Amino acid sequence: MATLKVPAQIPSPEDDSEQLRKAFQGWGTDEGLIVKILSHRNSAQRELIRAAYASAHGEDLLTSLDKELSSDFERIVMLWTLGPAERDALLAHEATKKKVTSPNNFILMEIACTRSPLELFKTKQAYQARYKRSIEEDVAYHTSGDFRRLLVPLVSTFRYVGDDVNTTLAKTEAKILHEKIADKAYGDEELIRILTTRSKTQLNATLNHYNNEYGNSITKGAPMKTYLKCFSFRVITDDPDNEYLKLLRSTIKCFIFPEKYFEKVLRLAINKMGTDEWALTRVVTTRAEVDLQRIADEYQRRNSVPLDIAVSNDTSGDYKDMLLALLGREE
Amino acid sequence: MATLKVPAQIPSPEDDSEQLRKAFQGWGTDEGLIVKILSHRNSAQRELIRAAYASAHGEDLLTSLDKELSSDFERIVMLWTLGPAERDALLAHEATKKKVTSPNNFILMEIACTRSPLELFKTKQAYQARYKRSIEEDVAYHTSGDFRRLLVPLVSTFRYVGDDVNTTLAKTEAKILHEKIADKAYGDEELIRILTTRSKTQLNATLNHYNNEYGNSITKGAPMKTYLKCFSFRVITDDPDNEYLKLLRSTIKCFIFPEKYFEKVLRLAINKMGTDEWALTRVVTTRAEVDLQRIADEYQRRNSVPLDIAVSNDTSGDYKDMLLALLGREE
Repeated sequence: MATLKVPAQIPSPEDDSEQLRKAFQGWGTDEGLIVKILSHRNSAQRELIRAAYASAHGEDLLTSLDKELSSDFERIVMLWTLGPAERDALLAHEATKKKVTSPNNFILMEIACTRSPLELFKTKQAYQARYKRSIEEDVAYHTSGDFRRLLVPLVSTFRYVGDDVNTTLAKTEAKILHEKIADKAYGDEELIRILTTRSKTQLNATLNHYNNEYGNSITKGAPMKTYLKCFSFRVITDDPDNEYLKLLRSTIKCFIFPEKYFEKVLRLAINKMGTDEWALTRVVTTRAEVDLQRIADEYQRRNSVPLDIAVSNDTSGDYKDMLLALLGREE
Repeated sequence: MATLKVPAQIPSPEDDSEQLRKAFQGWGTDEGLIVKILSHRNSAQRELIRAAYASAHGEDLLTSLDKELSSDFERIVMLWTLGPAERDALLAHEATKKKVTSPNNFILMEIACTRSPLELFKTKQAYQARYKRSIEEDVAYHTSGDFRRLLVPLVSTFRYVGDDVNTTLAKTEAKILHEKIADKAYGDEELIRILTTRSKTQLNATLNHYNNEYGNSITKGAPMKTYLKCFSFRVITDDPDNEYLKLLRSTIKCFIFPEKYFEKVLRLAINKMGTDEWALTRVVTTRAEVDLQRIADEYQRRNSVPLDIAVSNDTSGDYKDMLLALLGREE
C-alpha cells in the first residue's frame, strides 16, 4: 500500500509545469508550492510534468530544482521527482562510487532484493544510459570477498516471478542451508546460489520448510518472534558485529518481510543522534508509491508511535513538509 | 552478414500459412514446399505466419510441423521457425536439463557471449515464460566448481553496450589477467570478474593492451597467428585437454572473434565421423539471420572449401535442402 495521495482532479502537466516555474521566480523560491504539486503526483504524472517543463523552458526540471533548492529538501525533491528506475540507478551509482562500505552494501542489496525483477532490469538500463557502464561491473569492481560473492549475483540475476513452487527442491535446499549454517559456512557457494538465483516464492517455501524441519532445534532456549528469525538466528547471533552476516540477514529479511527491513532502517535513521536524513529520504522516496503504508504500520507496531509523528518530531522546515506529504498526512 | 534470402515480393502471412497447411495434407508431406516457404522468411515474417496459422487452424504451426516431420529435418525446421529468443531459450534449457556436460557448457557460453545483452535478456524472458524458472537458477543448479563460477555470471550479467573505453582500466585489467594467467589461476575471481562483467568493447581494449604489453614474452618461441592467441596461448597450451580451459578460451574467442568460434564448431561437426547434426543445425539456424556469411567466409579461408559444398557433401535429403537454403545457396 502506497502512502502517495493523488487528488481526483489534477491540473494538466503544462499547468503544473507553469506553476513550478512560477515557484522558482520572483523574490525567493516558493517551496510550499513545489511540495504541494510534486508530492501529490505519481511517477507517470511527474514524468509528463518534466517533459512539459523541458519543452516550455528548454531546461530539465531537475536542473532548475538543483539551482533553486538546497540541502535535505533539495535531495528529497530531486530523488522524488526522478522516476523509480532513474532514482534507483542514481542511488546504486552513489553506492558504488567509492570502495563499497557498510551502508552502501545495504543500499545495493536493498535495490536488488526489494524491487521486482523487471524493475531491477529497468534500473540497469537507466544506469547504463546515465553512467555508460553496467551496474554489475561497478558492483563487482568495488567489492571483494564474501560481499562480492553475495552482492554481484544479487544485482545480476533476473529472477523468475511466479507462484510455482517445487516442494522437493524446497526441502533439499532447506537441508543445504541448514548444513551450511551449522558449519558456519556463511559465504558458501551453495548457500549463495540458493539465495541469489531462486524466485522469491521458491525461497519463501524453502525458508518455511527450514523452519518446520530445523526450527525447534535452532530456537531451543532462544526467544523467537517470527519464523524469519528461526532461519537467521544462527546466522546473526553467531557474531552480531560481523558486517557480512548483517548483510546476509538483511538480504533474507528483504525477500520475506521487506516492511520489517525498511522499518528498521527508518527506526535507526530516526533514533540516531542527529537523524540520518539520507536513509530517511531514501526509504520515503523509494517506497511512497509502493508499500510505505505497510512500513508505517510496522513502524507503529514496533515503536508505539506513528511514523509521521516520529518524523515530524525529528525533522523541520520544507524537508519535514515534503516528508509528511509523501507519508500521506493530510494537510 | 546474414545468409538468409528473402524475396522482394512475398505472399501474405495468410497465404504462406495456407500453403504450409496444404504441404501437410494429402499423400505424404510436401517437404520441398515447407523448405521453399520457411527458409526464405525472416523471424518477424515467420512470427506472422505462425499467428495466421494458429488463428486459421486453431493449432500452433510448430505442433503441426512436429506431427508431420521427423529426425534432423524436423529439428532444423522447428528451430528455424522459432523466433531467436524462443530458440535460444529452448537450446539453453536442453543444455541445463541434465548435469551439464562439455558440449552443453559450450552452448550456454555461446548463447551468453555471442548474443547482444538485449537479445540475451529476451531469451531470459522467453525461458521463464516457457519453463517457469530462470536460466540463472538452472545453470547455477546444474554446474559446479570453475564451470559454475564462469557460466553463472556469463548468463546473468546485463553487459553495457557502447563504444566507451576506459584506457587506464584496460591497462590495469590486462595486468591482472597477465598475473593470473602467469600463476595459472584460471578460475581466479578477478579474472572471471573481468571476463563476465566488462562490455565487449572494453574487453577488446583490455585484450589489445594485453597483447601489446605481454604479447612478446608469451609468444616467444611459439607459432602465433592472431593476437587472440597471444592472450589465450598460455591458457590453452597449459593443458589442451582441460575442459574448463577449453571453455575459457572459447569464451574469449566468442567475444573477440565469434566467426572463428563458429567456424570451428562447424568444422568439427562436419569433419566428425558421422556428422554432428545437432551442432550443424544449431549454428545454421541461430546465425543465418545474423552473421552466417562471415562464418562461411572464415570457413572457406580455413578449410579451402566453401561451406555450402562441405555441407552438401556431408548431408542429404530434405535436411540438406533446408541447410543449403539457409546458407543462401541459390536453387
